[in-house]
Amino acid sequence: MTAINPKIRLFVEGAFHAGAVIPLAEDQAHYLLSVMRSADGTPLALFNGQDGEWLGTLSVISKKKAEVRLVEPRKPQVGTPDVWYVFAPLKHGRIDFIVQKATELGASALLPVMTARTIASRVNADRLLANAIEAAEQSERLEVPVVRDVEPLTKVLAAWPEDRVLLYGDESGNGLSPLELFAQLPADIAKWGVLVGPEGGFTPDEFALLTNKKFARPISLGPRVLRADTAGLAALTAVMAWRGDWDKKPRFEG
Amino acid sequence: MTAINPKIRLFVEGAFHAGAVIPLAEDQAHYLLSVMRSADGTPLALFNGQDGEWLGTLSVISKKKAEVRLVEPRKPQVGTPDVWYVFAPLKHGRIDFIVQKATELGASALLPVMTARTIASRVNADRLLANAIEAAEQSERLEVPVVRDVEPLTKVLAAWPEDRVLLYGDESGNGLSPLELFAQLPADIAKWGVLVGPEGGFTPDEFALLTNKKFARPISLGPRVLRADTAGLAALTAVMAWRGDWDKKPRFEG
Repeated sequence: MTAINPKIRLFVEGAFHAGAVIPLAEDQAHYLLSVMRSADGTPLALFNGQDGEWLGTLSVISKKKAEVRLVEPRKPQVGTPDVWYVFAPLKHGRIDFIVQKATELGASALLPVMTARTIASRVNADRLLANAIEAAEQSERLEVPVVRDVEPLTKVLAAWPEDRVLLYGDESGNGLSPLELFAQLPADIAKWGVLVGPEGGFTPDEFALLTNKKFARPISLGPRVLRADTAGLAALTAVMAWRGDWDKKPRFEG
Repeated sequence: MTAINPKIRLFVEGAFHAGAVIPLAEDQAHYLLSVMRSADGTPLALFNGQDGEWLGTLSVISKKKAEVRLVEPRKPQVGTPDVWYVFAPLKHGRIDFIVQKATELGASALLPVMTARTIASRVNADRLLANAIEAAEQSERLEVPVVRDVEPLTKVLAAWPEDRVLLYGDESGNGLSPLELFAQLPADIAKWGVLVGPEGGFTPDEFALLTNKKFARPISLGPRVLRADTAGLAALTAVMAWRGDWDKKPRFEG
């Protein structure tokens, strides 16, 4: 390990080993060459989701093209808690915000779902992924969450794995508080999901469907009415703090 | 209590009693008359921060002027946990977002502070308050958080009440996780504060200052590096969930 501490951290695809040359995507090359004006030889931190974080150096090929030459490993790959974040997409660009925050907080997968009262009718999966990658790069994550295509909530629930506990926001008074809920749930649960509805909430039919699923548990986030995005991030925070990896510290390099 | 369930909920100033007439501010009248096109007699839900929530009806005076006539109480005033949210203001309108979310989550006061690495140089206190009022109206809160003028962090810490526990985000590895921290802290703490630094973090001098304060405790929010706003809302969520009022349910009316 060297004392070099790169200022820029990028997610790239390809196997990592010393001397490997990884081509950069067009937008990454543009960012480095035109926005950051990085020179040939600039040190970079790279991760690919499986080989930990590596030190690399920039090789400029042309004004718009660049690649990275891998030097040596910086950090070993470590796991992130397995928590799926299931959310009804919101309009007005607030979906970008949700994806960024959920990625920082450590969601392992992002599942946009259509519910009866969901207003947004289309989801730009490329944009979700771009936001998730950027948030992973900035939050020192070693992997990017899986971004799933949008599906109806009913379909996601029908295919839901029985051993994955799904916490869904319920403001009707049926939910348990995080303190109560995590005291009740078995200590060895390894797979989680958090589900938040649209601004208008779930319909009675959707609540009935959720109530009938053994894996689904209502969670109550206090007496104030939280907006959908706030509720989702609060529930994700609770899972990470109680049952995730918040006992671990950030892995800073000198 | 009637079965009337007003769609619009407003914060107003003035003492509440049956028959009281409360003038509406210019922007409230504009919102009701021009945006919502509310007619004379429209039912409204009102709160003033001390008398609970009341039912009132709209009295239209002119195209730009209106008042509310109070009918009867809907919900009794209840307290909110006493948690101050202390934050270095961020640029690019993200401060609006922070104020909204902190208000929804239940912060009792909002204290913008200047730190050595804070980039935003001015804070529009009127705008902060307007955002806090709107978030209180939408989240069924019965009071608006106190919005303090921006002050240097050093001044806020010098005047900090000794009996108010201040949790500050520390990514250096010195902090305890929420689980560890709340297990250690006495059960009878009633006054809390959450402090988050700017995007660039606290300086070594600021960390030294905090370390020397008996009331200040570092909190660690896991191995991923959270952006300042994410860290603040996660820490506020943790205080509310462990030591706040999340055992209480929302107070919905039929």
